[in-house]
Amino acid sequence: MRILVTGGTGFIGGPTIKALSAKELEVVLAVYPGDAGFVPDGVKTIPVNLLDPEGRATFLAERGDILLHMAWYAAPNAFWRSEKNLDWLTASVDLCRAFADQGGKRLVVTGTCAEYDWSEGGVMDEASTPTRPSTLYGVCKNSLREVVHAYAQIREFGFAWARIFWPYGPGEPDGRLVKTLFTDLLAGRPATCRAGNLNRDYIHANDIGAALAELCLSSCDGVVNIGSGSTVSLGELSTRVAELVGRPDLLTVLRTETGYGNPETVVASTRRLKDEVGFAPAVGLDEGLREMHDMLIDKH
Amino acid sequence: MRILVTGGTGFIGGPTIKALSAKELEVVLAVYPGDAGFVPDGVKTIPVNLLDPEGRATFLAERGDILLHMAWYAAPNAFWRSEKNLDWLTASVDLCRAFADQGGKRLVVTGTCAEYDWSEGGVMDEASTPTRPSTLYGVCKNSLREVVHAYAQIREFGFAWARIFWPYGPGEPDGRLVKTLFTDLLAGRPATCRAGNLNRDYIHANDIGAALAELCLSSCDGVVNIGSGSTVSLGELSTRVAELVGRPDLLTVLRTETGYGNPETVVASTRRLKDEVGFAPAVGLDEGLREMHDMLIDKH
Repeated sequence: MRILVTGGTGFIGGPTIKALSAKELEVVLAVYPGDAGFVPDGVKTIPVNLLDPEGRATFLAERGDILLHMAWYAAPNAFWRSEKNLDWLTASVDLCRAFADQGGKRLVVTGTCAEYDWSEGGVMDEASTPTRPSTLYGVCKNSLREVVHAYAQIREFGFAWARIFWPYGPGEPDGRLVKTLFTDLLAGRPATCRAGNLNRDYIHANDIGAALAELCLSSCDGVVNIGSGSTVSLGELSTRVAELVGRPDLLTVLRTETGYGNPETVVASTRRLKDEVGFAPAVGLDEGLREMHDMLIDKH
Repeated sequence: MRILVTGGTGFIGGPTIKALSAKELEVVLAVYPGDAGFVPDGVKTIPVNLLDPEGRATFLAERGDILLHMAWYAAPNAFWRSEKNLDWLTASVDLCRAFADQGGKRLVVTGTCAEYDWSEGGVMDEASTPTRPSTLYGVCKNSLREVVHAYAQIREFGFAWARIFWPYGPGEPDGRLVKTLFTDLLAGRPATCRAGNLNRDYIHANDIGAALAELCLSSCDGVVNIGSGSTVSLGELSTRVAELVGRPDLLTVLRTETGYGNPETVVASTRRLKDEVGFAPAVGLDEGLREMHDMLIDKH
């Protein structure tokens, strides 16, 4: 079986490719020309710009049974409002359609917990929590999902949509919370957690990668949350980072106003992931943070 | 003030261009190369294929203050499931973005009552009825609306979305209900109305055109229903057509099972159209059908 993968060199893509290449699969990866991400042995790479129609055609000429589409604009903070969300929406619609045209059987695309209606907060359930994205990023992802879902029913290919919660891990780009805390504290700079009272569902990038690999090989269709199913407060998370670095003195934890659109708690229901995909996260938060600390110390 | 218009030669577009050209506006219309639709004097036409990025660029180089985007794939019956909905979704996202880039101030796009959740039926209200399109057409229109709405907030241009209910009128293409009934009965062929018990909100294409022209010149943003606010059963509608033709003997009216997704009644709330756009339909159903009959008799 042959799987085509986009977005496989990034923070989440890297561990996903690693998990896929450990399976009985031929893995073919689209890489942006000149992108120097790590690619495991045995993975074929095709240098293409997926925002270019010719790039998509070149990639899909590789023909796969499965397409795992993870590529999107993901620069920390900027991604919420960037116009590049529009580019990725239209390119993704086209890519999914071209995949069906080349005889593709199963499509898995990564979405986001930001598609959900957060006005109530609490447990986000694939079946019962409505969608109501409040950002351009969330709206574009949610629209892609709805369009491809309707199209998959007409063209009759399998379609799963992975809603990823709060990822963290060693490949985290600069500008994301955990990476920023480590960077500042390791450099001896003061660090501030501005929303210490928010409880969020953090999941290690290796667990996300392993979950996506299982989802690709399962026959589970529809929306599947990729989260840990438990929460940590951002204050607690920041404190653990500061303790690992040995500089709790440099950390300030503030509280933020919660309410409509910024609920105290957002956590994944993991019933589908556990019962239908058969996956449970393996990396505990302490272990994940310690590993990240050790890797950053080595680089430092 | 200069308005750019797409889709202005069709069944709904024709009357809309007529209404716009009666206003103090420079009207610039994109027409598909070779398309022989009627265009009033004083309307500038630009022959372009809007599905082609170069065609969109050529059209938007005309620079307008307002863009009224109506073009979409609309072949009767086929449009519900056609892949061309995907082409029009991606082209429309790109067109709306390019319009903002050229300094556009106000964007008006035509949507559909098929975006609403019909599971309950009844009065469809812009603010309180949820969206839940059940067709690829409805999903693509709804997705376009959500994406452009989020984008308009970031780029700060005015954005209105016109949800059109059941249009009828003299330019109706073959394959739509009213036109088919007239054609068959005028030719002396038996005709069948398969869902005589459904009540739907029919509105004359001239009223739609006039409403869209008012909406373009208003400052009313968000979703606005374009309907008559009242219903006729398809059985009653068919019977009136048969009576106009003088062949009620040729008409069979059947009933269909109603329920989830196929409700007995779907009708627009017209409060926004009336109070915020200041428009009320002027063409009664009897008058509209008689005019359509007389025009078809002339052609027959």
